[in-house]
Amino acid sequence: MADPNPPQTFAQGSPRVLVAGATGFAGALAAHLLWRHPGFELTGVTGRSEVGRRLDELYPRYRVPLAIEQLDLDGLALERDTGGRLDAAVVAYPHAAAAPTVGALLELGVRVVDLSADFRLSSIKTYEQWYGEHPRPELLDQAVYGLSELHRAQIADAAIVANPGCYPTAAVLGLAPLARAGLIADVVIDAKQGISGAGRTFDETTHLSMAGENILPYNVASHRHTPEIEEQLGLLGAELPVQFQAHLVPLDQGELVSCYVTTTRTVAPAELGELYGDAYASEPFVEVVSEPPGTRDVQETNFCRVFAAADPHTGKAVVLSAIDNLWKGTSSQAVQNLNIMFGLPEIEGIQ
Amino acid sequence: MADPNPPQTFAQGSPRVLVAGATGFAGALAAHLLWRHPGFELTGVTGRSEVGRRLDELYPRYRVPLAIEQLDLDGLALERDTGGRLDAAVVAYPHAAAAPTVGALLELGVRVVDLSADFRLSSIKTYEQWYGEHPRPELLDQAVYGLSELHRAQIADAAIVANPGCYPTAAVLGLAPLARAGLIADVVIDAKQGISGAGRTFDETTHLSMAGENILPYNVASHRHTPEIEEQLGLLGAELPVQFQAHLVPLDQGELVSCYVTTTRTVAPAELGELYGDAYASEPFVEVVSEPPGTRDVQETNFCRVFAAADPHTGKAVVLSAIDNLWKGTSSQAVQNLNIMFGLPEIEGIQ
Amino acid sequence: MADPNPPQTFAQGSPRVLVAGATGFAGALAAHLLWRHPGFELTGVTGRSEVGRRLDELYPRYRVPLAIEQLDLDGLALERDTGGRLDAAVVAYPHAAAAPTVGALLELGVRVVDLSADFRLSSIKTYEQWYGEHPRPELLDQAVYGLSELHRAQIADAAIVANPGCYPTAAVLGLAPLARAGLIADVVIDAKQGISGAGRTFDETTHLSMAGENILPYNVASHRHTPEIEEQLGLLGAELPVQFQAHLVPLDQGELVSCYVTTTRTVAPAELGELYGDAYASEPFVEVVSEPPGTRDVQETNFCRVFAAADPHTGKAVVLSAIDNLWKGTSSQAVQNLNIMFGLPEIEGIQ
Amino acid sequence: MADPNPPQTFAQGSPRVLVAGATGFAGALAAHLLWRHPGFELTGVTGRSEVGRRLDELYPRYRVPLAIEQLDLDGLALERDTGGRLDAAVVAYPHAAAAPTVGALLELGVRVVDLSADFRLSSIKTYEQWYGEHPRPELLDQAVYGLSELHRAQIADAAIVANPGCYPTAAVLGLAPLARAGLIADVVIDAKQGISGAGRTFDETTHLSMAGENILPYNVASHRHTPEIEEQLGLLGAELPVQFQAHLVPLDQGELVSCYVTTTRTVAPAELGELYGDAYASEPFVEVVSEPPGTRDVQETNFCRVFAAADPHTGKAVVLSAIDNLWKGTSSQAVQNLNIMFGLPEIEGIQ
Repeated sequence: MADPNPPQTFAQGSPRVLVAGATGFAGALAAHLLWRHPGFELTGVTGRSEVGRRLDELYPRYRVPLAIEQLDLDGLALERDTGGRLDAAVVAYPHAAAAPTVGALLELGVRVVDLSADFRLSSIKTYEQWYGEHPRPELLDQAVYGLSELHRAQIADAAIVANPGCYPTAAVLGLAPLARAGLIADVVIDAKQGISGAGRTFDETTHLSMAGENILPYNVASHRHTPEIEEQLGLLGAELPVQFQAHLVPLDQGELVSCYVTTTRTVAPAELGELYGDAYASEPFVEVVSEPPGTRDVQETNFCRVFAAADPHTGKAVVLSAIDNLWKGTSSQAVQNLNIMFGLPEIEGIQ
Repeated sequence: MADPNPPQTFAQGSPRVLVAGATGFAGALAAHLLWRHPGFELTGVTGRSEVGRRLDELYPRYRVPLAIEQLDLDGLALERDTGGRLDAAVVAYPHAAAAPTVGALLELGVRVVDLSADFRLSSIKTYEQWYGEHPRPELLDQAVYGLSELHRAQIADAAIVANPGCYPTAAVLGLAPLARAGLIADVVIDAKQGISGAGRTFDETTHLSMAGENILPYNVASHRHTPEIEEQLGLLGAELPVQFQAHLVPLDQGELVSCYVTTTRTVAPAELGELYGDAYASEPFVEVVSEPPGTRDVQETNFCRVFAAADPHTGKAVVLSAIDNLWKGTSSQAVQNLNIMFGLPEIEGIQ
Repeated sequence: MADPNPPQTFAQGSPRVLVAGATGFAGALAAHLLWRHPGFELTGVTGRSEVGRRLDELYPRYRVPLAIEQLDLDGLALERDTGGRLDAAVVAYPHAAAAPTVGALLELGVRVVDLSADFRLSSIKTYEQWYGEHPRPELLDQAVYGLSELHRAQIADAAIVANPGCYPTAAVLGLAPLARAGLIADVVIDAKQGISGAGRTFDETTHLSMAGENILPYNVASHRHTPEIEEQLGLLGAELPVQFQAHLVPLDQGELVSCYVTTTRTVAPAELGELYGDAYASEPFVEVVSEPPGTRDVQETNFCRVFAAADPHTGKAVVLSAIDNLWKGTSSQAVQNLNIMFGLPEIEGIQ
Repeated sequence: MADPNPPQTFAQGSPRVLVAGATGFAGALAAHLLWRHPGFELTGVTGRSEVGRRLDELYPRYRVPLAIEQLDLDGLALERDTGGRLDAAVVAYPHAAAAPTVGALLELGVRVVDLSADFRLSSIKTYEQWYGEHPRPELLDQAVYGLSELHRAQIADAAIVANPGCYPTAAVLGLAPLARAGLIADVVIDAKQGISGAGRTFDETTHLSMAGENILPYNVASHRHTPEIEEQLGLLGAELPVQFQAHLVPLDQGELVSCYVTTTRTVAPAELGELYGDAYASEPFVEVVSEPPGTRDVQETNFCRVFAAADPHTGKAVVLSAIDNLWKGTSSQAVQNLNIMFGLPEIEGIQ
């Protein structure tokens, strides 16, 4: 056959990007999106396992014909010293494992989009309460929270972009208009997600004969995305504890976050419509819809579909927010952030 | 082959039961359960379509070797007049279509478990607000709400048992201990259900290529199970509007109802544990569990698994209630009710 | 929000294409692929139902913001007479319904890729044996069979391209090297396909609660794709009756065709490898692989993955051929053919 | 709650059975079936992992309230010497690990149904060719192949019953009538199975995000069930190499085996119908059906549905055989064999 994996095509002088941790679902998809991206040059993919195998063996659909390497920081340093250039890295490591690598890359002058939770919370105390000791707390003030729609300006200049968790992405985009308007008195967030949310983990939660035909709530009253959502809502003016509950449902990629808001005052349907319409009128990736969104509508896209309704019966506002947890919830938002960081059109490569 | 469908075995003199509307998912499962039930004689299965076909052609797994007949009320009258006997019927008709048939059966001296919503709400006004005109309002006071665990004594003597909706079954069993204790100040109920909940309906919501890989919220702020839940919670002492939201997820049978309760006062974990332990200590089909229940744990059973936790962060109580929507949510609860109505052991035929 | 559906971008003077029958799965995907295709202008989408609705309401993921119109042949004629231009149409109608429309479009000077079976068989007799009377037999000699890899040269000039069935696509690509080499003495073809193969049909075969957890063989010894496969293999030198059997399995998009070939003589593994390697060395969309291909590897792509092995135990050759039934099996192959017909790079818009 | 796991009810003096290896899918289901079986007393469940956990924690649906123990052969010996009694064991160990335990149990006077392949092949040479060295070859002549329908008489008296592989069960039941009649000249067997066939294995083949939306052929020309099928067909008179190919499809439990038979002479449809009708007329668990069987029709049952058709076009016979791979394909057939071994009605406990 002809080479099914033609060499990457990108503009000369494009920013050069590495994906560290490309063997997991998130890193692999980031590599896929960057490989086919006309504005970035994907210089390599690294992994802590599977070294030597080609990424398109592990993920045939992603068709990235690069061999997985070990991350070689010394080699990168040498390269830099001899005129080489690495502009950015997507780091897809587990929590706590990410920060040291992020630090090392920063020292090499490489800007980082970090997919872990290590730089998502501004308070070390909160971080350590949920995740344990932080390996590199001194780097925190170089980090910007990477919910593209909320922190665009800061992302543009950031050394570290802390890519949001998938649940916070959907929840905060869904609730931001209400939070900004000071309308949230209390909120319950019930989230459902496909099995890809568990990542390339092989256990009872991902085995098709156990995860199939199942709806599985998990981490009751203890999900680590809670403080992340609370911090972001707080920044928008809604400082309050949120009730967050996650569930796994038997599909691959898709996430729906259902938010039930006790409002600070009665909100008329028309006002709600205007609030959401205005908030997202110029956003390329947030769609305010008039019918409850199914996750299938946004599968394998960077879109977030938001629906908001006032319930006259209870007086509450119901907000439904649908994303693809691996795309807008993780890897395509990482690319959206890279676009912002390097001055490319925000939709490039992820339309 | 030998007859894979041996004649039904049951005790002589067993109550004789008919299933009207056996072509849908609920009626077919009721027929299946009654066919293999040692304490009932299944006298026939009727349908408004598919007349003449055998039920085990439509539903091979259920292995009920009876031909579907048209419901013949005149024939039943004649039979009765000539010494025949029909003790009970399960009516599995759509809302509004059920009541007239229920009435006709009552006149023949047949006790009915009605799977529709026609007799679930005690207030005609509420019924008509959600379902339109009621065809036989005068029958309402002969009906008992058939949530077995709550209304056992009245079910035993009822002429009409209004089998609960699947969501109210899970929600009310989950919330009853809190409602009785006067602890519910406010409640959000987020429900997820497999595609069998849509019944033998052929459209976009059930097509595997549309329902698969999807999480679909529906009937926002307008689900008909809302007043049913409210009435039952009200009877237990919690009169309040409930926020109810339903979602379809891609599995066949299974339902999880997640309840977020703002309590009237702080409830300690130990108190919560005691409350639930006591409430269901002697219930054969309600299991209070210490880990969040997956729906797979109760699939094809009459069990309801309930988990309750106090969230110290928000002060709310989180209650998770899992059932099989077609079993405890519909047809096996109908059999549980028949067992109660005819003095059989409550677990017979549905263990 | 910003318009999530920006106007189509394509080169001025690009061929103008219409999709007739865009409400079904195949037509909708063809519209999606043409809408985002830089080399074609999608002038409209028509349907025999859903007229007036936007296609992106029916298929949100496909994001084609055009309203569905009725096919207006008179309007097209008028347009042509007043200098308008329509270069091509994809016709996605059922068998027998397609031919008259194809004929009418031809008369307007429009070249057609027809997704139905109406022009796939060269013999009217065979057609009528399997499909009934042919509505426009006189058009048959203007048609070319659109298996791109086999009939590229003729497709380039054809007035009608008869897009192959999905099973013949996978089967013939899998068997062509053996057929050409005169090595097929006998062949059994066992095909498995996801539920999207049943199309936008709402019945027992597509309901998730019936199609899920099922493996369903259908059309035993009577599948209409049989004569199509036989004709194509015959053209390659293998004239023989093929044993073909299709099965539905519970996924959305994906098709695997397993071929068991009794060879005319012993074929060594090395010879087999060379045969397949040579056959597809320069094909952009056929990948000869060294591990059995899963359909997931080619999902939502125009690729066909082919694996061939000699079984020393039986002496037979086993050929496994995987495609996405809606993409290479239908709509992306239609675009591949349009690319060939209009002299565009064959991979454009479907990489 | 009331004890949801009431003590097992069975007749006094019932045969006492142990399940060794109850943590895997097959052993757990065997324990479930024996626990609810009125004719056997389940004395314990053992495992090589998860010791101390209750089986109903691992498999909530199976509701076997026994703690997993380590297999204690010395303890069993002591028990026997002090008047205790263990009549039988189901051994659900991997291949090669099973034989030594089977041997030890035999020495204690315990009859065994072995779910591994260790005693399925009568020829050591064939065994070692496919599985490696046999740990206890001297026990082979105490073993009977446990395809209940074929070897009933010998099973009744056997010390070791080698429970068949799931594919051989479906394939041999499907082909036996043709084999006995001397009608098989050649046969291709294409098998499809749900993910439970991979067992409690956590890897790429079972992860829902990899196994879902996939059709995956495996073990091309090298599946270990091949010699098992060949030996059984040989015993029925059809000595020939069979072409066998297995595929994983995305469901939990279900297996369809499609057989394509080149017959030794022309077989008329009527003859075929008679052949199959006669063969299985008195079998309680084999259903000869007139429509192609879906696996859903036999899910969670001990039934095998067989469909046979003559294809006039090719002259071949097409036989489709559907089972539940975990039930008739493994654990319920083990119970069927235990029923035979201990003189119980063959259908008891698995109707």
